[in-house]
Amino acid sequence: MRPSGRAPDELRQISFQRHYTRHAEGSVLVCFGDTKVICTATVDERLPPWLKSSNQGWVTAEYGMLPRSTGSRMPREASRGKQSGRTMEIQRLIGRALRAAVDLEALGQRQVTVDCDVIQADGGTRTAAISGGWVALCDAVRGLRKKGLIKRDPLHGMLAAVSVGIFDGRPVLDLDYPEDSSAETDMNVVMNDAGHFIEVQGTAEGHAFRRDELDALLALAEKGIGEIIAAQRAVLAG
Amino acid sequence: MRPSGRAPDELRQISFQRHYTRHAEGSVLVCFGDTKVICTATVDERLPPWLKSSNQGWVTAEYGMLPRSTGSRMPREASRGKQSGRTMEIQRLIGRALRAAVDLEALGQRQVTVDCDVIQADGGTRTAAISGGWVALCDAVRGLRKKGLIKRDPLHGMLAAVSVGIFDGRPVLDLDYPEDSSAETDMNVVMNDAGHFIEVQGTAEGHAFRRDELDALLALAEKGIGEIIAAQRAVLAG
Amino acid sequence: MRPSGRAPDELRQISFQRHYTRHAEGSVLVCFGDTKVICTATVDERLPPWLKSSNQGWVTAEYGMLPRSTGSRMPREASRGKQSGRTMEIQRLIGRALRAAVDLEALGQRQVTVDCDVIQADGGTRTAAISGGWVALCDAVRGLRKKGLIKRDPLHGMLAAVSVGIFDGRPVLDLDYPEDSSAETDMNVVMNDAGHFIEVQGTAEGHAFRRDELDALLALAEKGIGEIIAAQRAVLAG
Amino acid sequence: MRPSGRAPDELRQISFQRHYTRHAEGSVLVCFGDTKVICTATVDERLPPWLKSSNQGWVTAEYGMLPRSTGSRMPREASRGKQSGRTMEIQRLIGRALRAAVDLEALGQRQVTVDCDVIQADGGTRTAAISGGWVALCDAVRGLRKKGLIKRDPLHGMLAAVSVGIFDGRPVLDLDYPEDSSAETDMNVVMNDAGHFIEVQGTAEGHAFRRDELDALLALAEKGIGEIIAAQRAVLAG
Amino acid sequence: MRPSGRAPDELRQISFQRHYTRHAEGSVLVCFGDTKVICTATVDERLPPWLKSSNQGWVTAEYGMLPRSTGSRMPREASRGKQSGRTMEIQRLIGRALRAAVDLEALGQRQVTVDCDVIQADGGTRTAAISGGWVALCDAVRGLRKKGLIKRDPLHGMLAAVSVGIFDGRPVLDLDYPEDSSAETDMNVVMNDAGHFIEVQGTAEGHAFRRDELDALLALAEKGIGEIIAAQRAVLAG
Amino acid sequence: MRPSGRAPDELRQISFQRHYTRHAEGSVLVCFGDTKVICTATVDERLPPWLKSSNQGWVTAEYGMLPRSTGSRMPREASRGKQSGRTMEIQRLIGRALRAAVDLEALGQRQVTVDCDVIQADGGTRTAAISGGWVALCDAVRGLRKKGLIKRDPLHGMLAAVSVGIFDGRPVLDLDYPEDSSAETDMNVVMNDAGHFIEVQGTAEGHAFRRDELDALLALAEKGIGEIIAAQRAVLAG
Repeated sequence: MRPSGRAPDELRQISFQRHYTRHAEGSVLVCFGDTKVICTATVDERLPPWLKSSNQGWVTAEYGMLPRSTGSRMPREASRGKQSGRTMEIQRLIGRALRAAVDLEALGQRQVTVDCDVIQADGGTRTAAISGGWVALCDAVRGLRKKGLIKRDPLHGMLAAVSVGIFDGRPVLDLDYPEDSSAETDMNVVMNDAGHFIEVQGTAEGHAFRRDELDALLALAEKGIGEIIAAQRAVLAG
Repeated sequence: MRPSGRAPDELRQISFQRHYTRHAEGSVLVCFGDTKVICTATVDERLPPWLKSSNQGWVTAEYGMLPRSTGSRMPREASRGKQSGRTMEIQRLIGRALRAAVDLEALGQRQVTVDCDVIQADGGTRTAAISGGWVALCDAVRGLRKKGLIKRDPLHGMLAAVSVGIFDGRPVLDLDYPEDSSAETDMNVVMNDAGHFIEVQGTAEGHAFRRDELDALLALAEKGIGEIIAAQRAVLAG
Repeated sequence: MRPSGRAPDELRQISFQRHYTRHAEGSVLVCFGDTKVICTATVDERLPPWLKSSNQGWVTAEYGMLPRSTGSRMPREASRGKQSGRTMEIQRLIGRALRAAVDLEALGQRQVTVDCDVIQADGGTRTAAISGGWVALCDAVRGLRKKGLIKRDPLHGMLAAVSVGIFDGRPVLDLDYPEDSSAETDMNVVMNDAGHFIEVQGTAEGHAFRRDELDALLALAEKGIGEIIAAQRAVLAG
Repeated sequence: MRPSGRAPDELRQISFQRHYTRHAEGSVLVCFGDTKVICTATVDERLPPWLKSSNQGWVTAEYGMLPRSTGSRMPREASRGKQSGRTMEIQRLIGRALRAAVDLEALGQRQVTVDCDVIQADGGTRTAAISGGWVALCDAVRGLRKKGLIKRDPLHGMLAAVSVGIFDGRPVLDLDYPEDSSAETDMNVVMNDAGHFIEVQGTAEGHAFRRDELDALLALAEKGIGEIIAAQRAVLAG
Repeated sequence: MRPSGRAPDELRQISFQRHYTRHAEGSVLVCFGDTKVICTATVDERLPPWLKSSNQGWVTAEYGMLPRSTGSRMPREASRGKQSGRTMEIQRLIGRALRAAVDLEALGQRQVTVDCDVIQADGGTRTAAISGGWVALCDAVRGLRKKGLIKRDPLHGMLAAVSVGIFDGRPVLDLDYPEDSSAETDMNVVMNDAGHFIEVQGTAEGHAFRRDELDALLALAEKGIGEIIAAQRAVLAG
Repeated sequence: MRPSGRAPDELRQISFQRHYTRHAEGSVLVCFGDTKVICTATVDERLPPWLKSSNQGWVTAEYGMLPRSTGSRMPREASRGKQSGRTMEIQRLIGRALRAAVDLEALGQRQVTVDCDVIQADGGTRTAAISGGWVALCDAVRGLRKKGLIKRDPLHGMLAAVSVGIFDGRPVLDLDYPEDSSAETDMNVVMNDAGHFIEVQGTAEGHAFRRDELDALLALAEKGIGEIIAAQRAVLAG
């Protein structure tokens, strides 16, 4: 039994609240159960220097956690003077995943920065951030299209992410913190709406995992991502 | 006329939402109109090294803004590798103000850290942070008293803050961003429920201000702080 | 009785030594009793990038203390790798105060940097720095006018600062370190020669202060600043 | 055809040179073709503070590239003042992978640090580092066992890593730089000698990859890792 | 002819003003002509961690320049967030030179930090700092001896430093800035009162220097250092 | 007797391996006995900003040690976030020494960066780095001449460096680590093939050294540098 009483292939309650704050071109509060992340997408008409002479745009991401988003307070990275390796790793993953579903030439010579700030953490912050960041990015791109600044849609379908893992000997979907902290294997999967993979990151925490376990985890991820994409579509249609 | 249509001595809508996130000992979303700040209070039973041999506790504060809490995106301080002078100045003010209304000996040998993170900014973030941080601190102290860890109440009455300024030639209360960015004089005032001053910080932005202007500003602040303290009391009684 | 034997409304011995070092456009050693600060004003014909397209100049300030300017040695900020929050707060105050008395358009497209380095500290370093920095700024501006680089005088009258506070239950002027370290309320006031306020920063250290105490402190500050401005005028006429 | 003329399932020439430098407890020069990495394992009898009260040891890794290990010179991270996100991500992967095959309790209360410094890069530096770091770790552990400091063997079998990817539309093994820089999908796989997975990290660079492509890549990785482990065994037996 | 009109073997006017500031255990303003450096010696009864288990004390030095001690303003190192390589090199030289004339066991388990802060620069700041730092160190040690904290004199005789160089084809003593900036060879020499060498640092700026030039420079340095030590002795006897 | 059994005026085995890595314009593995340093020379056609308006090129150097190049592991400077003072001092010495033998105008408007990374340390890393860096620089310049980018040879003859010191009371050449760590006097000497001095840095570690000792050390250095230059010539002719 899972601590939350969920079935092995059951997601937590997923929600996306668009227009959560008022300044950003896209602003979404995404909740995967008790994990809550504010995702904003900012359009900047200036490109980073290393892209200036190219013919394309760029999408990048930054990630942070409020110091007391977690059970015990974490030192503020701004005050420590540097981002942790974990933060770096996560924000690189978010940016890479989002870019993989964007036609950067169609985006035009501009940069979109997706900021993902965790206000409450209960496991799966990076997959919530990718899924919510995608909705914020959709809103930012819609705004550019409404203004006529972009002609061709730069977004390839839809994109979402979920975590899967082996908890207490069996594969489960969308781990919360109590599961995540004792899982033997943890995998983050990013997929698009065609059912193809954008990113697969599996890590053995306790014991090396077998090929059949990997297969079971990927099947769970595919199911969960399908449901998350349905939720994204519903809120974007709203 | 004020851009918002408010009367000169009229506050924005003020609200305090307790238990906003679930991990912290105190957690409050404070709104002064469109300015929204998450204030959490964390109790740490370890004191900073320089206080270890003393007979008292400590209260400190940290402040941050989400990169897109403002009209144009600000670089993330964690990624720049340092906090700006403005951030430093504000978090020192918040900590100093809160400490001034706490009996540090009665608090006992523990530290409370109040984190104030702005998720949406529309002027007056530091006064909202002090007012909301006080409510979070009250909740954290209540928790310590319920557990029997503190015997004597370490909090001296109530404390709140508001900004006042001279906008378009006349004194006004609780400036929003359009007012703040063109005010001639800007003053942040922190008071307790006895009507005494904890902190007064007035700055001439456009022209030096006269003594009678100062007097008018202090009177406005006193009125506004009285109303904010009433709102704090109401929510703490809830 | 004050530890120094001064009357409550009596300044320490105030002096300004112009042309103290030889390289800077303005260079002043200011002494408020045993507090000694070297203030230099540097004219730079290049503006910071964010002002380049504007039609005005800029005045900024930096503050530092020699490691052994104080009773016990402070770690060198250059070696710690960052400026403390206190340093940041003080240099922002100095810069803001000086700018408030300068017509930045009349200054023309150039920047003046006022460096205030404390070589011996005995309380009141920030008010000494503002008062001495103003004299250094006057000398730098005079140089620009002599060279014909500035047509209209960019300086609005005169400007000085002093600290006041409540020591041992009574309001006193120009606190030295023994007073400052045990004052119940500490206030720094910056005024111009018209008797108007540029900056008022009052902080309750021990107990919240009443309105009548605030009034008494402001009256002391006005008296003290009048005397400091007289001393500035005398040395500038020399 | 691959630029190097290799068959799709053909590794580059793999070699491990033990005792490469003389100070470290384990020191290996690993070559995957023209990719050359110095891997040293250092035993430290002091544990990091957060592990002191536990009953186990720790294995960690650090990664660096000599500035001119690459085609164009990269700025030295020590001189830039921070490690890049890529460096952080890679050294976290190396440490996590090595730890997954170590019984930390059997290692005892000591830390082994594996430093992986790239002296020449031609693609696949992280998988070379993991494979070579493992051999260095084996030598360090052997030394501890010879001295009688460890009773039970803390190493679970063998461990190696390889990259696979889709280049020019077909799955290939052990990508060199020309392949890596234009691959559509890139995957790093870490496995043990039981054929189980320690880490799988697949990233779509050009287009999202299908499940059958993932399967083909995993099969290639399994074949390659088997050959690398054979090479590790041969050199450790030498 | 030298720009200053001095004879080739003529020092600038050298002076040492003891008790220059009042807090430090030793405090000296040293002037080598227009080069002015404040040297303070701070006694700290706590040793750095790496010396705690030894049976000796330590002497270390730090060096800084006020931003406008030079002809054009240098960025403040505290604000840049790091000390320059030049600063590091100089403060290591000062500390090493002073330590070479101190019996660290006789000093006892305490650290003396010598801070050398240049308030006006005109060439030769490092040799002025060593010579003035020595006098400050003497005063700090005298204080320890007066208090009975040190029994045996830890200072080996006297120590001073001077620069020599080849300017306009001929060897000269104690270069000022105009000479220093166009010297072909520049050498800093530290000697004790027995005429032995503590440190010799010679650098070819324009052309490699011959052995006979080196000999001539060393002879000049010996003469100059003799005179500086006489001045130190006179002021310490005062 | 020296620990290694060498005669007082005997170098360790010196070797230079050109084309050690394949990407850099010059790449040399230099060995002074067990001290091994990878020296690469990188040509960059862009000049640093402060040289852009000049008519010359630049040569600069950076120095690093692999964490376990030494007997006990040193923390990685990239991870500590700054280079140590020792590193700064050494890389400034290397750059200054190399530049002293280069005609920067003849080099043309380009920068050569010489990276010296110690992979195994046994004393004398800085002199090995200068001697090996010179060979790498020669190769980089040859490449520029072959491409016709430089007309006039910018290299003035040859340049090498060696350490000398007083060990166990007698002057010895090319100290290894056991000698270096207990030497009373340590001197690094850089000379050209005309027998003239580029840099002389002598430091008394144990006792101040006499003029006759200095003379003996310089004679040893001259002999050793002659032999090193012969080895450089041989390998460059190869």
